[in-house]
Amino acid sequence: MKRIVIALGGNALGVGLEEQIKNVKKTTEIISGLLADKENEYQIVLTHGNGPQVGMIKLAFEKSGMEMPLTECCAMSQGYIGYHLQSALNESMSAHGLRYTAQALITQVLVDKNDPAFVVPTKPIGSFYSLEEASRIMSENPGIVMKEDSGRGYRRVVASPKPVEILEKSSVLRLLDEHHIVITCGGGGIPVCESSGRKVSVECIVDKDLSGALLAKEINADIFCILTAVDNVYINYNKPNQQSLGKISYSELERYVNQGHFADGSMLPKVMAAMEFVSESKDKKAVISSLENMVSAINGESGTTIYHDKAVRNEELQPVM
Amino acid sequence: MKRIVIALGGNALGVGLEEQIKNVKKTTEIISGLLADKENEYQIVLTHGNGPQVGMIKLAFEKSGMEMPLTECCAMSQGYIGYHLQSALNESMSAHGLRYTAQALITQVLVDKNDPAFVVPTKPIGSFYSLEEASRIMSENPGIVMKEDSGRGYRRVVASPKPVEILEKSSVLRLLDEHHIVITCGGGGIPVCESSGRKVSVECIVDKDLSGALLAKEINADIFCILTAVDNVYINYNKPNQQSLGKISYSELERYVNQGHFADGSMLPKVMAAMEFVSESKDKKAVISSLENMVSAINGESGTTIYHDKAVRNEELQPVM
Repeated sequence: MKRIVIALGGNALGVGLEEQIKNVKKTTEIISGLLADKENEYQIVLTHGNGPQVGMIKLAFEKSGMEMPLTECCAMSQGYIGYHLQSALNESMSAHGLRYTAQALITQVLVDKNDPAFVVPTKPIGSFYSLEEASRIMSENPGIVMKEDSGRGYRRVVASPKPVEILEKSSVLRLLDEHHIVITCGGGGIPVCESSGRKVSVECIVDKDLSGALLAKEINADIFCILTAVDNVYINYNKPNQQSLGKISYSELERYVNQGHFADGSMLPKVMAAMEFVSESKDKKAVISSLENMVSAINGESGTTIYHDKAVRNEELQPVM
Repeated sequence: MKRIVIALGGNALGVGLEEQIKNVKKTTEIISGLLADKENEYQIVLTHGNGPQVGMIKLAFEKSGMEMPLTECCAMSQGYIGYHLQSALNESMSAHGLRYTAQALITQVLVDKNDPAFVVPTKPIGSFYSLEEASRIMSENPGIVMKEDSGRGYRRVVASPKPVEILEKSSVLRLLDEHHIVITCGGGGIPVCESSGRKVSVECIVDKDLSGALLAKEINADIFCILTAVDNVYINYNKPNQQSLGKISYSELERYVNQGHFADGSMLPKVMAAMEFVSESKDKKAVISSLENMVSAINGESGTTIYHDKAVRNEELQPVM
């Protein structure tokens, strides 16, 4: 029996309802295939991003003139995406004759209000505005910071602090023990921080891969698998000397990180989350792969697998640059 | 140890974000008080309505020109309300020194596509339209029925079929056994029906009290408690000879139902749900009460309590008219 946390990207779910339903179906077919594996028995936790979905919900409220904080929009996106994943997983597991049930959980993530990320918010969200509109919004709402985004106009930016604790981990553990696939940490979790001994909501976005890595550690998972748009992690990505990474140790990958091979807001947070997961135990591995190759990547036959430096393994290490 | 399902009204949560947060806090304080009861030990499941909330979400998408089906709006409302209940319950249980955790579950409810309710839809939802707009919408969308609503304009009406099965009941049971308060069946549950062996979403609204009663039976609860705006069920309500009902048997209450004492869409569905719950077992009781009186009503000191006809009890029965 292996316990595995699979982190699904919000972009992989697509933009809009029809695309999401189609993509969810494809995703859940592959995940059910993993459960149907006769040689290995898995306990599966599915986490997911919510970028396009929380953006859509936030925009609907903005356009209709209703105020709805990011935190509540995140909670709504957990319901919206969780329902589709739960429903499609149940259907494909039933088609495979599996006696599992999928359960989506509303999930909160604790962050530290003193996290330095709150000093310089970096994560763009919501609609684009002109400089004039952005200035007016900032002067009317002292807590809101707007920044120019890639020549497309001004957008609100929010902090992306590190996750400290997944508050609903006990529910995850409980359901896993009873033939449930658990869907949790949607959009990285609904962020809350402690203030005067109370937990209060805080407008920020927690990286969904970091939340997934934290949950995977908290529930003592064996494997943390991050699904992305490419089959592998690459060094010199999109250059003539591009090279894919197969099996690699923490220290080797760290060297590539320090050499600046991975893009901010793209592959870098995934690599960092994978390293975070394997950092403390030589018995764990992290996998970064496309959805299509997921099963073979988990079996070590494709994708990028990251090991603890002292991991005992038979495979050859990637040559170090 | 008694297992209790508490059904909270969507209207009791208030309209809009601030009112909801305030009302949720009051509600969760009282529920935590029940858990803190030293003499009785309770396992608590909380179900809730979502009328104003799903209306608000549906309206935001309508106004912003985005198409979002009722089913997905219901899923979003489960996230939105579930998050607030979960967060406030955790806070008040922690203040009481209780080692419980609240968990909101995305919940689907199975309905029968041959339910006669689908032939004549009755439940009004969403915005008001003029006769001309309503006619145009109906001609462009063959599945949509619009009806005049109390002189306020035309609204879409959807079916309100009976719940057949709560699909996530195994998760509810699992978490209850492990010191969790479970929040489930939001808005009566996300409705799905079986079609060619698959479960597909269906645009309708399931009465939240009937879903609560069904879940209470499915998980073998001892008590089903419906919270409403009044302290008791009344006969001759708002008339000079108005009389509150205290402890009453199924058959007595059924007689009042047949005499037309209870309003459609208001007290009648609550009374029917309470009767449904006690119909099969003489060891169960249903309670209808205000939130304020909830604890004393569960202890049999206020509110209306409905018993099976053969229930063994010491209390005097209400005189029958």
